[in-house]
Amino acid sequence: MPLSEFELIQQFFSNSDTCRPDVSLGVGDDCALLNVPAGKELVVSIDTLVEGVHFIKGADPEALGHKSLAVNLSDLAAMGAEPAWVTLALTLPSVDENWLAAFCRGFARLAAEHNVQLVGGDTTRGPLNISIQAHGFVDAGSALRRDAAQPGDLIYVTGTLGDAGLALQAPQNNLPLSIQLRLDRPTPRLAEGQALIGLANAAIDISDGLISDLGHICDASGVGAVLQVKDLPCSQAVCDHIQMSNDWSLPLSAGDDYELCVTVAAEKQAEVERLAMDFECGLTKVGYIEAQPGIRCLRADGQDFQQVSAGYEHFITA
Amino acid sequence: MPLSEFELIQQFFSNSDTCRPDVSLGVGDDCALLNVPAGKELVVSIDTLVEGVHFIKGADPEALGHKSLAVNLSDLAAMGAEPAWVTLALTLPSVDENWLAAFCRGFARLAAEHNVQLVGGDTTRGPLNISIQAHGFVDAGSALRRDAAQPGDLIYVTGTLGDAGLALQAPQNNLPLSIQLRLDRPTPRLAEGQALIGLANAAIDISDGLISDLGHICDASGVGAVLQVKDLPCSQAVCDHIQMSNDWSLPLSAGDDYELCVTVAAEKQAEVERLAMDFECGLTKVGYIEAQPGIRCLRADGQDFQQVSAGYEHFITA
Repeated sequence: MPLSEFELIQQFFSNSDTCRPDVSLGVGDDCALLNVPAGKELVVSIDTLVEGVHFIKGADPEALGHKSLAVNLSDLAAMGAEPAWVTLALTLPSVDENWLAAFCRGFARLAAEHNVQLVGGDTTRGPLNISIQAHGFVDAGSALRRDAAQPGDLIYVTGTLGDAGLALQAPQNNLPLSIQLRLDRPTPRLAEGQALIGLANAAIDISDGLISDLGHICDASGVGAVLQVKDLPCSQAVCDHIQMSNDWSLPLSAGDDYELCVTVAAEKQAEVERLAMDFECGLTKVGYIEAQPGIRCLRADGQDFQQVSAGYEHFITA
Repeated sequence: MPLSEFELIQQFFSNSDTCRPDVSLGVGDDCALLNVPAGKELVVSIDTLVEGVHFIKGADPEALGHKSLAVNLSDLAAMGAEPAWVTLALTLPSVDENWLAAFCRGFARLAAEHNVQLVGGDTTRGPLNISIQAHGFVDAGSALRRDAAQPGDLIYVTGTLGDAGLALQAPQNNLPLSIQLRLDRPTPRLAEGQALIGLANAAIDISDGLISDLGHICDASGVGAVLQVKDLPCSQAVCDHIQMSNDWSLPLSAGDDYELCVTVAAEKQAEVERLAMDFECGLTKVGYIEAQPGIRCLRADGQDFQQVSAGYEHFITA
């Protein structure tokens, strides 16, 4: 009995665990019909994961289902948005029902955790490519943006930095499972992003590395930044790696951590740090914004830190 | 001077011709911030085009830019929606600025024609893959859906059927340019879809062939259909092909025409046909809905037409 594209979508995606009252029509028609609550802005993000670029051939499909959704939800987190709906465009070299079932399990579990409903999708034949669009809400005018950092703002990051980079760099080493999971199953900092609305000036999620992503805040805001390298929050495994190698590039410029980087006016420091006591992942002050463009990294003695490579960018042309 | 992924997106996509007042924040941050008008439902569609599946290697990038947007807008048309915003996830094997500029030209021209603004995107390295999500609005509760066809409804289609299939089947032949354009630059029937709100019961766009897409209406509505084969609207080139070959599969089951197929209650026939006099593409009655499941094709003499193959589906598994 042949199983068609339509039936595949039907079978795996239309019986999502999540069923939201703001979805008038979900998977199965030409379009989804959705209701944005009054007074809310719609927040939309799109991200693509490609085999051989964002994950290796043969990657665990369940982890991939989790990660491909997580990186999109992380973009919503960076705006302080509450997630709602997601669409999935999946290009597959062939139909492997076991692969697809595992992918959907990872995807659906994270979606259910955040009350996110899959409302549309497209399945196509071709080299493995996963493109996801996430939709959420913020109160109109309140979203955290990249372009609102001010000189004097303090810079904070959630969680720890460099774990995913370490797992990527040294998959053959005997790393703790917690470090491997940081690469394979990143946690979108949704609650933290929402809690920081009204407190943070600017925000971004760290997908390409702290220097690179903080650089986007600086560029968009027309400011610069100073990072205190010794203050960067690192897991024991990353600390060990730095001690052995004297190489700080993992927390400074390795990608895929999906922590948030936010800037906060100095007068809100106490309030933010009180709030952050409820963050399971923690929130660490790592520097400050200054008027002078560029990002300077300082050593504990206040001297300039050596130059580090910029974050990961997919294309560099001559 | 290296041109990064971010700058590519900036250069080609952020200076779109269209600048809508309902976009609070477009390309350039983690997410777009958008405003759905009060009383409107958000209508969302996602579609992917893959090289070697939906278009040949070396396809004209300007036509590809047009078509990849057109197929998404066609989904909005099928719901009767007014288009507003679009996001683009583009996976490219390498950065060819000429290719990208041509692609964006085709994309931006069609977008401007329909007042559609590009509000977000992602550019990735990998096998060519174009995933587009279109957003539009309908008055809450008024969208045309697949599941509302009623026994006794008349079936109408816009435009002509089989042109794209003919161009695909016989690219080496000396076809009129108008036929080749039907494959390369399909026209989303947006005005027609919007005009049919309140008149049509069910609607779909014909991407996989009339039999297949009308089949989706029938399946979703729990009905069947009768098609009068002699009434199918065909261009001169397709008529010639049918006369030569005695093969009706082009208008019945070839895909890629992106015309609308709608069902209309019999008592609204006069009103719809009066309205359709304003449709430049025309609107043709081709059959009717009946309670009995399945699609029957009738010859001019009322006898059953021979079995034809179903529409195009990407996956058939054993």
